[in-house]
Amino acid sequence: MVDKPIQDYYPEETAVCMGCGRNNAHGLHIQTFWDGEEGVARFTPQPHHTGYPGLVYGGLLASLIDCHSIGTATAATYQAEGRAPGSEPQIGYVTGTMTVTYLKPTPIDAALTLRSRVTELTPRKAIVVTTLYAGDQEAVRGEVIAVRMKLT
Amino acid sequence: MVDKPIQDYYPEETAVCMGCGRNNAHGLHIQTFWDGEEGVARFTPQPHHTGYPGLVYGGLLASLIDCHSIGTATAATYQAEGRAPGSEPQIGYVTGTMTVTYLKPTPIDAALTLRSRVTELTPRKAIVVTTLYAGDQEAVRGEVIAVRMKLT
Repeated sequence: MVDKPIQDYYPEETAVCMGCGRNNAHGLHIQTFWDGEEGVARFTPQPHHTGYPGLVYGGLLASLIDCHSIGTATAATYQAEGRAPGSEPQIGYVTGTMTVTYLKPTPIDAALTLRSRVTELTPRKAIVVTTLYAGDQEAVRGEVIAVRMKLT
Repeated sequence: MVDKPIQDYYPEETAVCMGCGRNNAHGLHIQTFWDGEEGVARFTPQPHHTGYPGLVYGGLLASLIDCHSIGTATAATYQAEGRAPGSEPQIGYVTGTMTVTYLKPTPIDAALTLRSRVTELTPRKAIVVTTLYAGDQEAVRGEVIAVRMKLT
């Protein structure tokens, strides 16, 4: 269980990501809350996040899955190594491959919830599967192969 | 060969997409030029399109692949049906599944070029494969299964 979003533990100088960086003024500020078993993110789309009229843009949904999967992999790895989030050496991942399946249209006025789990964890990579809900409707699925990198 | 971006032929009321809608003031304005064989898009990242410092955000790269693949599928289908782009009934697609493979980091100061081809076209769907170049370096690959929809 992590008390604040895992992104708040990312190093100051790398926290500029358009998706999840707290230091990107134009970013989406995606936040991943790790509950010990899964990563949970909530997001409220803005009107300009539209794809077809009335629906959320698929590229935005892919962005949510991207950053939230990396956040989930990071939090899960700190836990697997029995370490406090943000402790040195920092744990970091990059996205190797991302697959997004759009099951249903996602209404722009829906509250979005992403739930992610790590299904495979090795010293070199993590596989993260995500379900994105629009309200309580399953709308999108994601799978990310996250590749571990050296941050420090 | 299409004389202007295929997105310029999208119906006025649906051209609000955050990725490629000409009527979205906050959008990326992705443009797909169809040359008769492939769709070509060029994009210059802005400083806030960063992921890790100095690199383009993966979610933005996925967005480019998303809209450009749909644009390519649309242009290719008009051609396959021997029709002028934008002619009635309008041809439209939505993204069913998108897979993005990040081969190399994409520098934020690189000029990006996407080249997409339709590898399978049926009345119900198109499969579009994309290579994204940073300068002349192959950096990202995409595959989109585009599902045909009725727009009119």
